[in-house]
Amino acid sequence: MKAIVYHGPGNKSLDDRPMPELKAPTDAVVKVTRTTICGTDLHILKGDVPTCEPGRILGHEGVGIVDSVGSAVQGLTVGDHVLISCISSCGQCDYCRRGMYSHCATGGWILGNRIDGTQAEYVRIPHAQTSLYRIPPGLDEEALVMLSDILPTGFECGVLNGKVQPGSTVAIVGAGPIGLASLLTAQFYSPSQIVMIDRDPNRLEVARQFGATACVDAGGQDPEAEVMRLTDGVGVDCAIEAVGVPATFELCTSLVAPGGIVANVGVHGVKADLHLEKLWDRNVAITTRLVDTVSTPMLLKTVRAGRLHPEQLITHRFSLSNALDAYDTFSRAADTHALKVVIEVS
Amino acid sequence: MKAIVYHGPGNKSLDDRPMPELKAPTDAVVKVTRTTICGTDLHILKGDVPTCEPGRILGHEGVGIVDSVGSAVQGLTVGDHVLISCISSCGQCDYCRRGMYSHCATGGWILGNRIDGTQAEYVRIPHAQTSLYRIPPGLDEEALVMLSDILPTGFECGVLNGKVQPGSTVAIVGAGPIGLASLLTAQFYSPSQIVMIDRDPNRLEVARQFGATACVDAGGQDPEAEVMRLTDGVGVDCAIEAVGVPATFELCTSLVAPGGIVANVGVHGVKADLHLEKLWDRNVAITTRLVDTVSTPMLLKTVRAGRLHPEQLITHRFSLSNALDAYDTFSRAADTHALKVVIEVS
Repeated sequence: MKAIVYHGPGNKSLDDRPMPELKAPTDAVVKVTRTTICGTDLHILKGDVPTCEPGRILGHEGVGIVDSVGSAVQGLTVGDHVLISCISSCGQCDYCRRGMYSHCATGGWILGNRIDGTQAEYVRIPHAQTSLYRIPPGLDEEALVMLSDILPTGFECGVLNGKVQPGSTVAIVGAGPIGLASLLTAQFYSPSQIVMIDRDPNRLEVARQFGATACVDAGGQDPEAEVMRLTDGVGVDCAIEAVGVPATFELCTSLVAPGGIVANVGVHGVKADLHLEKLWDRNVAITTRLVDTVSTPMLLKTVRAGRLHPEQLITHRFSLSNALDAYDTFSRAADTHALKVVIEVS
Repeated sequence: MKAIVYHGPGNKSLDDRPMPELKAPTDAVVKVTRTTICGTDLHILKGDVPTCEPGRILGHEGVGIVDSVGSAVQGLTVGDHVLISCISSCGQCDYCRRGMYSHCATGGWILGNRIDGTQAEYVRIPHAQTSLYRIPPGLDEEALVMLSDILPTGFECGVLNGKVQPGSTVAIVGAGPIGLASLLTAQFYSPSQIVMIDRDPNRLEVARQFGATACVDAGGQDPEAEVMRLTDGVGVDCAIEAVGVPATFELCTSLVAPGGIVANVGVHGVKADLHLEKLWDRNVAITTRLVDTVSTPMLLKTVRAGRLHPEQLITHRFSLSNALDAYDTFSRAADTHALKVVIEVS
């Protein structure tokens, strides 16, 4: 079968690889129909993720059709249309029993990292029963690719950790796909303001269309001054960090009101300064989280009800044979205006 | 009347000052019977608290007897024995209505900071109705001085923010009065372990007597290695920072398990490093808080029920005329083994 294979920093190619097979009675093999590329895949290609070794098939997002199931898997049948979660979870370890699937003792983020991933014609899914979701009939399966990772991540790590409430004020720093996913899902809770901060005018325009109440171009405006102006000098109840560099994290800690929350979503490679001399008496919380995908069933219901339109995030489509072009388009997002690129596999 | 007056960095004296008078109908004047010294008073004397200007009477803790009340104060009568909260709160502003009294628009920590404090024979208390607590009969009033600040601080900023639960594992970094206050109040929730970390063997011995399940002498032992050993390599559910320097804060972030909380209690004067490159995917929360004293009524009930013995924290007693000796004893705690020193005023 065809697959996108990581060959060490800066190197990937579309290779022929053997078909995956069931290895455990709790596995399933899924025929991938659509997948996508995540910012994390670009991190891997930079060599930032040492757990991902050369030879690994990339990808941790996708939808497909169950091709085979292990003897211990209940509730899934060959031919079922399924959403693949970016987090594999056994459902039985201490972390899974607390709903912290991201830290599953034998799962977590392993697809396209510690084991072969979804940017291929077929993928083996461990702990299939608790890591695949049957797609309800009538849903646009392409759109659901956005529910593998990006929407639960923006929702859980940003909106739920940030405790967005009716009437509350929210700032989202970073209007990339993850920040936009937070923007879309924050609106479930009817906040009074969602201020989007980025340096890319195109992304800010997208944010405006997606429901941001104000947009701040950090290239030309002082984001802290703007947020203070918009919030009567108080700051926001929730600042969502959706970039992953020290400057944006530190900005979030300066935007948050007393009693507020900085919800970190970004993937960080270095430390940041935490100005405890200003924050110690501010009654703030700072949260971090790798998505648990506990909200996937909830998000599926919002899509079904027409409250969430994941297809808004899709800007480009490629076939698997052109997947290297998909990487090129996604990695040059400032020029191509790419948000999420769908790879149509079969 | 006699009062301890701040005269700029390094300078304080026992002076004669005019009696305080009611300035607003919501004020009361309290005849102080007992007060104490807080680590924050030492910060002021170092010049670290610019809001406290020379000429200010120090102190934000104490018990006393209502001497006069303004016309708008309900529920308090001359002669009532009262506990003075370190936080003054109007009970009406947006923050007070959320229970965040620490950020009261016209209150917060003002006693012995922005207005004259409790280390005096009399003190004016603004917003008296919501800043004084009538002492139930039969309680040891001296012990209740510990409920003005230290016990609600250790409880709210450490134990409540840290979400200590039955069976959970707790590390407390710093076995000073605040850390010990967290230790005493954490036991309300029946955690499975409370590991106390300090460099002072005397304080660790006190911690052991107060209920710590393990003590780590950071002078000779590696606290991270010890905590990991005690928690099967997982880390603690809650790490309470009760010192206020970067090294102890950073230690707390290395002790906390995935899904856990670092509850900062310490007063910090400089920034700390936040190792987001290790923490971004750990599902942790870091909280800060200036005590709100929302828990004061709850703590009074625990004292009354014999579940909390605040007098355990009192090691020394002085008269107001010897208050400068009290400062000396408190500031040389490593030598004097002082925890809290009570100043008997009248």
